[in-house]
Amino acid sequence: MKMKSFVIIGLGRFGTSLAKELVIQGYEVLGIDRDEHIIDSLSEYLTHSVVADSTDEEVLRSLGVRNFDCGVVAIGNDIQASIMTAILLKDLGVKKVVAKALTELHGRVLEKIGVDRVIYPERDMGVRVAHQLVSPNLLDFIELSKDYTIAELEVPSKLHGVTLAELNLRAKYGCSIVALRKSDGVNIAPTASDVLHEKDLMVIIGTNAEIERFEREELF
Amino acid sequence: MKMKSFVIIGLGRFGTSLAKELVIQGYEVLGIDRDEHIIDSLSEYLTHSVVADSTDEEVLRSLGVRNFDCGVVAIGNDIQASIMTAILLKDLGVKKVVAKALTELHGRVLEKIGVDRVIYPERDMGVRVAHQLVSPNLLDFIELSKDYTIAELEVPSKLHGVTLAELNLRAKYGCSIVALRKSDGVNIAPTASDVLHEKDLMVIIGTNAEIERFEREELF
Amino acid sequence: MKMKSFVIIGLGRFGTSLAKELVIQGYEVLGIDRDEHIIDSLSEYLTHSVVADSTDEEVLRSLGVRNFDCGVVAIGNDIQASIMTAILLKDLGVKKVVAKALTELHGRVLEKIGVDRVIYPERDMGVRVAHQLVSPNLLDFIELSKDYTIAELEVPSKLHGVTLAELNLRAKYGCSIVALRKSDGVNIAPTASDVLHEKDLMVIIGTNAEIERFEREELF
Amino acid sequence: MKMKSFVIIGLGRFGTSLAKELVIQGYEVLGIDRDEHIIDSLSEYLTHSVVADSTDEEVLRSLGVRNFDCGVVAIGNDIQASIMTAILLKDLGVKKVVAKALTELHGRVLEKIGVDRVIYPERDMGVRVAHQLVSPNLLDFIELSKDYTIAELEVPSKLHGVTLAELNLRAKYGCSIVALRKSDGVNIAPTASDVLHEKDLMVIIGTNAEIERFEREELF
Amino acid sequence: MKMKSFVIIGLGRFGTSLAKELVIQGYEVLGIDRDEHIIDSLSEYLTHSVVADSTDEEVLRSLGVRNFDCGVVAIGNDIQASIMTAILLKDLGVKKVVAKALTELHGRVLEKIGVDRVIYPERDMGVRVAHQLVSPNLLDFIELSKDYTIAELEVPSKLHGVTLAELNLRAKYGCSIVALRKSDGVNIAPTASDVLHEKDLMVIIGTNAEIERFEREELF
Amino acid sequence: MKMKSFVIIGLGRFGTSLAKELVIQGYEVLGIDRDEHIIDSLSEYLTHSVVADSTDEEVLRSLGVRNFDCGVVAIGNDIQASIMTAILLKDLGVKKVVAKALTELHGRVLEKIGVDRVIYPERDMGVRVAHQLVSPNLLDFIELSKDYTIAELEVPSKLHGVTLAELNLRAKYGCSIVALRKSDGVNIAPTASDVLHEKDLMVIIGTNAEIERFEREELF
Amino acid sequence: MKMKSFVIIGLGRFGTSLAKELVIQGYEVLGIDRDEHIIDSLSEYLTHSVVADSTDEEVLRSLGVRNFDCGVVAIGNDIQASIMTAILLKDLGVKKVVAKALTELHGRVLEKIGVDRVIYPERDMGVRVAHQLVSPNLLDFIELSKDYTIAELEVPSKLHGVTLAELNLRAKYGCSIVALRKSDGVNIAPTASDVLHEKDLMVIIGTNAEIERFEREELF
Amino acid sequence: MKMKSFVIIGLGRFGTSLAKELVIQGYEVLGIDRDEHIIDSLSEYLTHSVVADSTDEEVLRSLGVRNFDCGVVAIGNDIQASIMTAILLKDLGVKKVVAKALTELHGRVLEKIGVDRVIYPERDMGVRVAHQLVSPNLLDFIELSKDYTIAELEVPSKLHGVTLAELNLRAKYGCSIVALRKSDGVNIAPTASDVLHEKDLMVIIGTNAEIERFEREELF
Repeated sequence: MKMKSFVIIGLGRFGTSLAKELVIQGYEVLGIDRDEHIIDSLSEYLTHSVVADSTDEEVLRSLGVRNFDCGVVAIGNDIQASIMTAILLKDLGVKKVVAKALTELHGRVLEKIGVDRVIYPERDMGVRVAHQLVSPNLLDFIELSKDYTIAELEVPSKLHGVTLAELNLRAKYGCSIVALRKSDGVNIAPTASDVLHEKDLMVIIGTNAEIERFEREELF
Repeated sequence: MKMKSFVIIGLGRFGTSLAKELVIQGYEVLGIDRDEHIIDSLSEYLTHSVVADSTDEEVLRSLGVRNFDCGVVAIGNDIQASIMTAILLKDLGVKKVVAKALTELHGRVLEKIGVDRVIYPERDMGVRVAHQLVSPNLLDFIELSKDYTIAELEVPSKLHGVTLAELNLRAKYGCSIVALRKSDGVNIAPTASDVLHEKDLMVIIGTNAEIERFEREELF
Repeated sequence: MKMKSFVIIGLGRFGTSLAKELVIQGYEVLGIDRDEHIIDSLSEYLTHSVVADSTDEEVLRSLGVRNFDCGVVAIGNDIQASIMTAILLKDLGVKKVVAKALTELHGRVLEKIGVDRVIYPERDMGVRVAHQLVSPNLLDFIELSKDYTIAELEVPSKLHGVTLAELNLRAKYGCSIVALRKSDGVNIAPTASDVLHEKDLMVIIGTNAEIERFEREELF
Repeated sequence: MKMKSFVIIGLGRFGTSLAKELVIQGYEVLGIDRDEHIIDSLSEYLTHSVVADSTDEEVLRSLGVRNFDCGVVAIGNDIQASIMTAILLKDLGVKKVVAKALTELHGRVLEKIGVDRVIYPERDMGVRVAHQLVSPNLLDFIELSKDYTIAELEVPSKLHGVTLAELNLRAKYGCSIVALRKSDGVNIAPTASDVLHEKDLMVIIGTNAEIERFEREELF
Repeated sequence: MKMKSFVIIGLGRFGTSLAKELVIQGYEVLGIDRDEHIIDSLSEYLTHSVVADSTDEEVLRSLGVRNFDCGVVAIGNDIQASIMTAILLKDLGVKKVVAKALTELHGRVLEKIGVDRVIYPERDMGVRVAHQLVSPNLLDFIELSKDYTIAELEVPSKLHGVTLAELNLRAKYGCSIVALRKSDGVNIAPTASDVLHEKDLMVIIGTNAEIERFEREELF
Repeated sequence: MKMKSFVIIGLGRFGTSLAKELVIQGYEVLGIDRDEHIIDSLSEYLTHSVVADSTDEEVLRSLGVRNFDCGVVAIGNDIQASIMTAILLKDLGVKKVVAKALTELHGRVLEKIGVDRVIYPERDMGVRVAHQLVSPNLLDFIELSKDYTIAELEVPSKLHGVTLAELNLRAKYGCSIVALRKSDGVNIAPTASDVLHEKDLMVIIGTNAEIERFEREELF
Repeated sequence: MKMKSFVIIGLGRFGTSLAKELVIQGYEVLGIDRDEHIIDSLSEYLTHSVVADSTDEEVLRSLGVRNFDCGVVAIGNDIQASIMTAILLKDLGVKKVVAKALTELHGRVLEKIGVDRVIYPERDMGVRVAHQLVSPNLLDFIELSKDYTIAELEVPSKLHGVTLAELNLRAKYGCSIVALRKSDGVNIAPTASDVLHEKDLMVIIGTNAEIERFEREELF
Repeated sequence: MKMKSFVIIGLGRFGTSLAKELVIQGYEVLGIDRDEHIIDSLSEYLTHSVVADSTDEEVLRSLGVRNFDCGVVAIGNDIQASIMTAILLKDLGVKKVVAKALTELHGRVLEKIGVDRVIYPERDMGVRVAHQLVSPNLLDFIELSKDYTIAELEVPSKLHGVTLAELNLRAKYGCSIVALRKSDGVNIAPTASDVLHEKDLMVIIGTNAEIERFEREELF
């Protein structure tokens, strides 16, 4: 089922960013937080926003949260409020409930009480930033499996002016080029005659070992 | 330059996750936090960890932070400590300083005092989770440009048992298949005769409009 | 299964009373509380007692809580600690977990995470005291059903010196006498010639309406 | 004297439960608490409820507490307020004053200042729950004396389908059956031909030793 | 009975002054306070002094308070501690217990629990200072009854060099002179020829109206 | 000069008692305190009372404190506010300023800044109560000098029915009787034939040694 | 450029004094502070004054701070607010930004984010007072270089009635007299016949060593 | 008398700067503060430094403060401690006591209790900075009287390369040049042929009106 409307509870930095992005993508978002200042500062960005205590069943009911496709419990530091809110959203009949966990134990409780998806944003972001730090040219990546990765890299200075034929990535390192982003657009079917320029981005797919060897030999 | 050693200051959820991941990948990590309990609980995971006040220049000097390739200021909520620590790392000669900003204004200060890279983990994670919520089959993605995306998707039940030839993605939607992850490994050169099964993952590349149309028609 | 050993977590007034009573009855009891003063003052009464944070999995494991037949989470006011402790006891394999709930919502969470029995001591005691207040001669009672009660009553002054034959309870009110407690012991098979004296207790069984009528006519 | 109207001071979990139960039973109840939120949430359940400081003599006088048959001081944690309220209720002429004590010393003070009945709900509930924990089939009980108990038990699976004649309780264990609760009502005069079924409850009377032996041999 | 040994509990300004004065007069004094700094600063002045919680029965018992003739509860602001300490002193068998009350209601409780004498030092001192303020020459006084007072006064400048015969106090105002304090000693049998000098003090006895008239006409 | 109007700043127990007594004696009293609750509860007793910050010069000026004959700084615990208020009263031209000191050092500052009279009510009351405790029959006293005292005593049971001639106080102990208070009034010229009765009070004058010997031999 | 209008943020003792002096000198001053009481007490002295949070960009913008010639960040103790306010003033286009630093590290951050002038008022005042303490006759001074000083001194009693010819400062000590302040005005061209009197001030210029020698020999 | 040794009480930013400067100038300094961290961080700079409560007479006595020529009470925010410390220093016989006042009222108290010199560093610094802000070329100044000032100015760009003869200051504006500071030293007797260069400083003496007119016409 396609989610169309969201209630986001807890509008800290993560919840606020999530709520704003959903609004930008055209979805209906009800934001709830206990802090009046936060609601004031967000009211122009969200479809609806209210100051409310999300652990009070009557309050949630009167806000009609059951009519939303998805409820996100993004409460920052109050584990008790997070658990209470999550169980109320489930009991009130919200179809899909997603909740942010602060610790592994918190996550276990959330799963037990029926939360559909438990997320650990800070932990996941830590892992993601770690990858980017160790490979300064790495802009983004998808881990396909324990072994395979798709990596988006800045073209290193060593390769400026080089054609894909000269680079010969597949032969030298075993990995392949999936796409190039150049100043005039994205090329999702690059050919041997394409030339790499400064500020171009290349997307490659391969095993971690292959990509690492490529980085080590070509990037530094 | 390849980063080999890291000093991470501030070991909240984000900093801890970052530090642990770097250690897992084989890098040397010095973790610093003001909270003794945090350091105690992390000492077995990190190369080195110390309880210290990172806004005290003498302390940082005596810890030899200048010998680390990269300093990450991951301090959670204390903006003053974050700024003071960042300027000290720069002044002490740490080659690359990365700092987490809590607000846009905080980020501006960090840039002005010379931080090499300012990151907003909660904000970025909010955006990332927003994408995943609106497309429940979407597992991960790379935004190549304003228009183009690489998306990792679960194969929807509608397509179980379908060959790539039957799916005919390029003809129907304009986007292409980059790779398939099946139970027995990743196929980075899928062919027309490959069959999609339950629990397979598919990686596709295309414009946002193309991918959205595919999701709308095939996933639900 | 007969319970033989108990771990009681949270030694407020309720938990302390529970733990002491179990020790008096000859059971093995491990008492856990975060407050050193409480543990100090109880150490001579309980089999074992330790100052510990019951939301720390390692701590509970090292205390060997899995070897106890029954775990009671009697934590007073900290709902988060109550939930975390309860899920850890279940995960560590404690056979039966009983937990005190502060609110109905708290109780719902405890049930969802697998607690075997949720108790509401203050609420239950409120109901019990209410019964005793409205019938000052009522010392104790068992509610058999919505209609039937067994009541332990002081013999009212009106009935001092009266024989059961004269009282003729069954004929007049429909309820029966189950037992008499006299100064020289309990008589569980009272006969028509038994005489009621001051300070005797009588146990009667009947419908609420019958017992109420008896109280109204004979007690005041 | 039959109590008809009650003023309950302190509406924590115990006081609230007590007040609600009295209202359910048809009595007039005035609830007093210092906390506006508590009074708000209870106003629909109680006959009257007011936010007031019960240690202010003028306040109590103006609320007309002297006109109530019984005053219950159920204040949770503030021993000073409990004592001050109790002495004021006595001085204002409330006929019967009942007060909850937190500690034995608190109880001694309450008695000295003339409180008619001092109760220890958490302590009593601890004892009661202890009995229920060690005998999982025990639902409720009345302690008649140091030796004799009336116990309400679930019929154990071993005895499903057994007649009272076959069970032969009196002969085997010395204790007697007082009543049976079956799905279609309570039988307060059970006979030898009555059959025990799953989910039936049995009420037995006897010495502790007899009942324990019965539980040990028949229940497990 | 003559009091010989005192235990003073609560060593604020009043308790400290009381304890020191008793020591000066040669009595044995045990001082008890919860505050280590206070005990440290008093240890050289008192016979014995200990840091202790006076609401803990075991503590009082182990300090042997029952062996003291008189216990004074001079606790400053903690009404609960004052009441608990007072009842413990009585229960432990201290022969005479004196306690300072902060409010009239506090005093009523202290009397009910058996305190032998309740004192209100600040209230009494307020009354005493009031008398001295309105009559600046008044140094001290004893109120004998609603009407009669003994007053110690500085000799006003008007009367310097005047003989008692000339002053003729009894004839003019009705009150009498009881004693004179002169630079060379106290004269408790003054005669008509005694002369009043600067810095002499006179003690007079009479009705309030007489003394007031004397003050009005001779002092200003 | 006769004081007619008073401004009392700081209405704790001492200040309140002082203010009320002055009003009872017919003087005009303005009471000032920072605490609205205190002013509310006193407004019916005092001539005027206001909630105000007495360390604000403009506030004191606008209240017209300069028109009062005497200002009393009775502030309880805030030494800074006491000093600031006292200097302002002096600077604003209040004719006589009296201030309560908490410590000897506080008293020294008050004197240096020009306070006309520094009082230590708790210390003085401690001394006064000490005298009364060691002589239980002593009701009040005036210390005339280091050696001489006037003492008001309850007539001890030993002396009930005794005439002053029989008692022969002057001959036996050296001290004299100044007055007798009997049930029908005060006798300020007692004669040898006056008889002492139960509940009579006697006022005696003499040296401390004489009075002590009298107490020791006649009172116990 | 001549500064004509000033916005002063943070109105502690330093900021208040600065703002008042600027108003006295005829400049336009907008004062901003978070504390309503401070703004209330200053509103009559400053051209404009508002209660506002200076770390909120919208607030500063709406106050039109960009139209002021000079912004002074005089925030007392909140380093974070100081930094945030300073960067906002720069970003909003205030032509000159001056900021007070609490520590040397704070000062470094302020410089990095573009503050035009960083001041350390307490540190500078400490140095200035040190000079005045060691030379009690020194009233003020300008340090021209490491070696040269202009000093304003009270004429010491030794020199009362002495002419400048007799004093012969240049010959004896090497330093010169720049000006004399006498009761009837300032003489900026003193001559040999001018006589020094009590209460005159002399301004001398010379090396530190010369002035010190003069002080040592003539002043004490 | 020449001051040689100083005790500085209160080592905030002002007190620390004062103490360090005195040590730099070769004086003996004892620093006292209640805060151990401050004393630790200063111990290497001061002659002696101790953690102590300066309001405790015994402590000051045992530190031998009476032997210091001058005591400076530089306590930051605690007005009570400032007053108490100042009176103790005077009573203990310190020859000269200087104290920092936070408010005008605080200053009045300090003067009344005998402090020899009351200083207002933040207020004075505010005035000083105000002068410098309105004249950006003004580096330092001495106010000789209400009318006359000595000002140290940067030579403005308009005057680079100009001789004093050309500048003709006395004729054009009425004020005179006292000294020039050039890169190679200070010239305290400048002549008509001296040339002004970039980065030179000039010291001028004159009336405020003259100097202001000079600044207005030559500096901007």
